[in-house]
Amino acid sequence: MKKLASTFVALAAAITAHSAFAQAKPEDAIKYRRAAFTVMAKHFGHLGAMADGKAPFDAQAAAADADVLAVVSDLPFTAFGPGTNKGAIKTEAKPEIWQDPAKFKQAHEDMRAAMPKLIAAARSGSADQIKDAFGPTGKTCKGCHDSFKEKH
Amino acid sequence: MKKLASTFVALAAAITAHSAFAQAKPEDAIKYRRAAFTVMAKHFGHLGAMADGKAPFDAQAAAADADVLAVVSDLPFTAFGPGTNKGAIKTEAKPEIWQDPAKFKQAHEDMRAAMPKLIAAARSGSADQIKDAFGPTGKTCKGCHDSFKEKH
Repeated sequence: MKKLASTFVALAAAITAHSAFAQAKPEDAIKYRRAAFTVMAKHFGHLGAMADGKAPFDAQAAAADADVLAVVSDLPFTAFGPGTNKGAIKTEAKPEIWQDPAKFKQAHEDMRAAMPKLIAAARSGSADQIKDAFGPTGKTCKGCHDSFKEKH
Repeated sequence: MKKLASTFVALAAAITAHSAFAQAKPEDAIKYRRAAFTVMAKHFGHLGAMADGKAPFDAQAAAADADVLAVVSDLPFTAFGPGTNKGAIKTEAKPEIWQDPAKFKQAHEDMRAAMPKLIAAARSGSADQIKDAFGPTGKTCKGCHDSFKEKH
């Protein structure tokens, strides 16, 4: 767990540090963060489906989901820079992201605190451990969406 | 390099094995593969920009791009299953993917043979090594796009 968590945080720091979208058009950042969220949601959701018995439990697939989440779950947060609140394509990002960056950063940190536990659980080969870690992690997703993502 | 390559292949095998989209709607698979390609292209392109001197070289960012590519570059290929040639959303996938699956599989294998070399180069901290590995890897992307992706 410790090792996973530190890898996770180091990668996030490296990606965040290089501010990938400094020179990009707003729609490039919007497209990227939406794409990264789509990949994240798919693998997060698959762990949840396995934990709930809605998908057959597959320890190898759970570990693969963990590998994806360890890398992908921080990527969207590299693409909410200044001026990316709107662009030529649709975004569901609320203005509050840029109006209250400290609150948005905290929501990100809450996910980063919970996700390594789900990643470790998904690599444990235990559906019960995944079930235990899934709820608290999902709560951080929902908390951020409730405050910062437009409702459909 | 060997270790990276084996990790890369093991992850790909695990994800491919669990056929993530067996029960999904075609548009779910289309959305996912397009999203994974978007993330892949961003980090692949960033390595190319650094190798060409179009972006400032940053060894830590290059290593982070490598970490993303090692996990993400195989993901789109888990989402071209039977019946995903069209759906409720746009796809640029050509019918040839499903008409000549052996050729499509070979194009995927060509990328999987080249990508670990770019990943190793990106982790080496050497812009020259990235430049050397980028071309051959990019050639496998282009080869697949030329045969299997609709032109704009």
